[in-house]
Amino acid sequence: MTEFMIDLQGGAKAPLYEKIYEYIKSEITAGKLAKGEKLPSTRRLAEGLSISRSTVDMAYEQLRAEGYIKAEPCRGFFVCDITGLYRLGQKQPDAGEENVADREAVCFGETGDRRMEIDFSPYAIDTESFPYNVWRKISKNVLLDDREELLFAGDGQGSRQLRETIAVYLHRARGVNCLPEQIVIGAGNEYLEILLSQILGGGQTVLMENPGYPQAYRTFRNMGCEVKTVPAGEDGLSVEAVRRENPSLVYVMPSHQFPLGSVMPLGERIRLLAWAAGECGRYLIEDDHDSEYRYRGKPIPSLQSIDQSGKVIYLGTFSKSIAPSLRISYMVLPPELLERYRNRCGFYATTVPRMQQEILNSFIREGHFERHLNKMRGIYRSRHDFLLGELKKREWVRRIVGEYAGLHFLVEVESALAGQEICARAAQLGVGVSDIEQYDLRREKAASGAVEGQKTEYPLLLLGYGRLHEAEMEKGLVILDKILSCETHRDETDEYKK
Amino acid sequence: MTEFMIDLQGGAKAPLYEKIYEYIKSEITAGKLAKGEKLPSTRRLAEGLSISRSTVDMAYEQLRAEGYIKAEPCRGFFVCDITGLYRLGQKQPDAGEENVADREAVCFGETGDRRMEIDFSPYAIDTESFPYNVWRKISKNVLLDDREELLFAGDGQGSRQLRETIAVYLHRARGVNCLPEQIVIGAGNEYLEILLSQILGGGQTVLMENPGYPQAYRTFRNMGCEVKTVPAGEDGLSVEAVRRENPSLVYVMPSHQFPLGSVMPLGERIRLLAWAAGECGRYLIEDDHDSEYRYRGKPIPSLQSIDQSGKVIYLGTFSKSIAPSLRISYMVLPPELLERYRNRCGFYATTVPRMQQEILNSFIREGHFERHLNKMRGIYRSRHDFLLGELKKREWVRRIVGEYAGLHFLVEVESALAGQEICARAAQLGVGVSDIEQYDLRREKAASGAVEGQKTEYPLLLLGYGRLHEAEMEKGLVILDKILSCETHRDETDEYKK
Repeated sequence: MTEFMIDLQGGAKAPLYEKIYEYIKSEITAGKLAKGEKLPSTRRLAEGLSISRSTVDMAYEQLRAEGYIKAEPCRGFFVCDITGLYRLGQKQPDAGEENVADREAVCFGETGDRRMEIDFSPYAIDTESFPYNVWRKISKNVLLDDREELLFAGDGQGSRQLRETIAVYLHRARGVNCLPEQIVIGAGNEYLEILLSQILGGGQTVLMENPGYPQAYRTFRNMGCEVKTVPAGEDGLSVEAVRRENPSLVYVMPSHQFPLGSVMPLGERIRLLAWAAGECGRYLIEDDHDSEYRYRGKPIPSLQSIDQSGKVIYLGTFSKSIAPSLRISYMVLPPELLERYRNRCGFYATTVPRMQQEILNSFIREGHFERHLNKMRGIYRSRHDFLLGELKKREWVRRIVGEYAGLHFLVEVESALAGQEICARAAQLGVGVSDIEQYDLRREKAASGAVEGQKTEYPLLLLGYGRLHEAEMEKGLVILDKILSCETHRDETDEYKK
Repeated sequence: MTEFMIDLQGGAKAPLYEKIYEYIKSEITAGKLAKGEKLPSTRRLAEGLSISRSTVDMAYEQLRAEGYIKAEPCRGFFVCDITGLYRLGQKQPDAGEENVADREAVCFGETGDRRMEIDFSPYAIDTESFPYNVWRKISKNVLLDDREELLFAGDGQGSRQLRETIAVYLHRARGVNCLPEQIVIGAGNEYLEILLSQILGGGQTVLMENPGYPQAYRTFRNMGCEVKTVPAGEDGLSVEAVRRENPSLVYVMPSHQFPLGSVMPLGERIRLLAWAAGECGRYLIEDDHDSEYRYRGKPIPSLQSIDQSGKVIYLGTFSKSIAPSLRISYMVLPPELLERYRNRCGFYATTVPRMQQEILNSFIREGHFERHLNKMRGIYRSRHDFLLGELKKREWVRRIVGEYAGLHFLVEVESALAGQEICARAAQLGVGVSDIEQYDLRREKAASGAVEGQKTEYPLLLLGYGRLHEAEMEKGLVILDKILSCETHRDETDEYKK
């Protein structure tokens, strides 16, 4: 029988039984302990190492449970044939922090690789105020129960409790009328748009406003839908344009259009609903993703809240109100689409981990979400007010669009430079701004051949304030001052000026 | 100025500042404190309630942060206009445990609503041995850092660290050769199959074995692919059948076909790879989801490991090895498809929450995954051996197929009853078994009109043992004995017997 030379003192700090376990395991995997070889009895090994027998018992039990050794009654412990065992190698050292390239890559127009020092991205939200303590506490409670259901895939539509919670929230916050049965939870808006395409079947024509939300445009096109665009107006989507284009689906953001911020007036909403109700197979996709924060006036109720004909598919997400990394979005289907959903997509397991659903459910039910929303609204409003105030002092600001809601607004600037040029120069100086052309959906087609552009007279820049402190905004504006106020530029490009 | 009648003694147990916060908040939301009304100074309120001033400070600060009151320097605190505030209502009491209907719904053929007392489902895994302690500890550590990146959506392909970890794991466990760049992480296999369809574009013809994995079949069809089927054989997919049908994509499970358990011999694998390499646009989708557990013989290396032409798309998941609720799967794309992935699907945010990715990454890197796999393998092997032994004693067992790997095998039974009839009777007695016909993919078409069936001479039942203890298996078998050994049945149905 082999003598075990186990160094219990030195090496990494670990419980004794672990050191014994590791030693024997490596002897076996290195082939120094051959298949069928007998191990010392637990009593003998304990005596030899001057430790308690129960410590050796634990080590042997671990080895046995994993299949390295087997216990033969009255005979002892023997090394197993480990051919079938997993040997995944040395513990891998942590490769260190994610590098900058991995940070928030969901920025249309940006490669995602560059992380601007001062980023006026309209997609950015404040992450410093994330309620870590609460989230940690709830996570701990959720895991503490050792509940089996947490490990099952669960209901494909998402946990019923969470859907009930969302139904109540949506009703109170957005006026949405629905039963939990109508809600489908998914890992992001794009996934739900994919499901929706599958539910509705092929051959759909989607109408979208342009400029618009690029993710949605690309998703519908990836699903083989034909996507038509109409110019986005200051009063939102034009129903006349809808009638003209005659799509089967209209994708609309009536409470806060992205990126222009327009609100669709009640009259047009009613007309749009009437158009949809006018024919079988027409649906409206209300994407409410940018409507949580409004700083002036009453909240705008959802389109779905006044839909009497079951034509609105309501789409929302927790990405902007809690964190983008959460990946929890939801879709409220009109009753007439429920059966089709079950038949065509009911077999899919949910895409949101059960644990995350439970944590979110508690977060909302215990009142934390309400507190978080109100707190964030206050923070964003101050930043909004500050940025607005600072911009109004600038002479290069001609017009501001889309204020008083959301996490960004648009600034029409007095400049002979093209929008893209301004953005490029700002980027070189560490400031991230985007230009309205980046949200021109037809620009997507440029990649596939057709070159179309949408030119405004003066550059229209998007300035988001979700992530920036006042000091950072000031700094960023000072850099924009340099780019936009420069006399030299004005002379050089005089011929382009109006 | 209003007097505040705050009951600090009674009511639910909560910190003092919370009671003050709740009181004032409800007075404001109920309209009893009007907009613009002045609150008592913190000093006065503290005196009046005989508590410390800092307690009142905390309450006022909370109210201020959420927008219920505002502080005007030198003047005091005033009630805000709360029109824009979220008021999501009373804290909702927990609705109680998820009801049985929400449990594991991913069972083809089952409504998902019934949860059998003794469930021989081939999809079921053991959940009692889930390493809760380790998972909790890692989760706590991940959240403890308050790291900002955890809140960003991160890399659309999935965190680079996790992809590195998976690349190493796949190489050691399955012989897969790839760089982290080739890996795409997604919330489940079906989602990745959807992405793949988008990457490859429309007009794909997919070839699958029948019986096969129903989720995959339905997903490809939902994406508008034409799906052809060929009979699944005891030696896996027939390359001759592939040549005959001439698809663009072949979906194959070469290491452990589901549900038959067949292993594709090396010769056929090489021929399949040669076929795929023979023309541009042909790809093989290797779904390795049921190959973690093998109880006899050496592990079968992946098909991808011998692919010299970059034709294999390798698909795997952690659903069976850790828990279905985790929702983390991965796809290894051949280098030539990477650019197309980035162009067509690079804009999608990842569908797996960042926190889950971090937890999984640590779970694997710290060696816990290897230990868990080996432990589970030991547990499943005992159950496999026990069930096999018990079945061999039964006279109604004609033949056993697909043993020594996975979490189920097939049992050809001596019975004049139809497979579906056996399953129905078993269900009534609380035992869940499935019949091979439930995995007949063409049965799906029955729903859409064409009626095709695949009849075997004797019923072929699937018995899974992932979730069952020996005692439960015994109990289940005793019930099957009743159904299958009954003399009465044999007489009644003599005419059907061979």
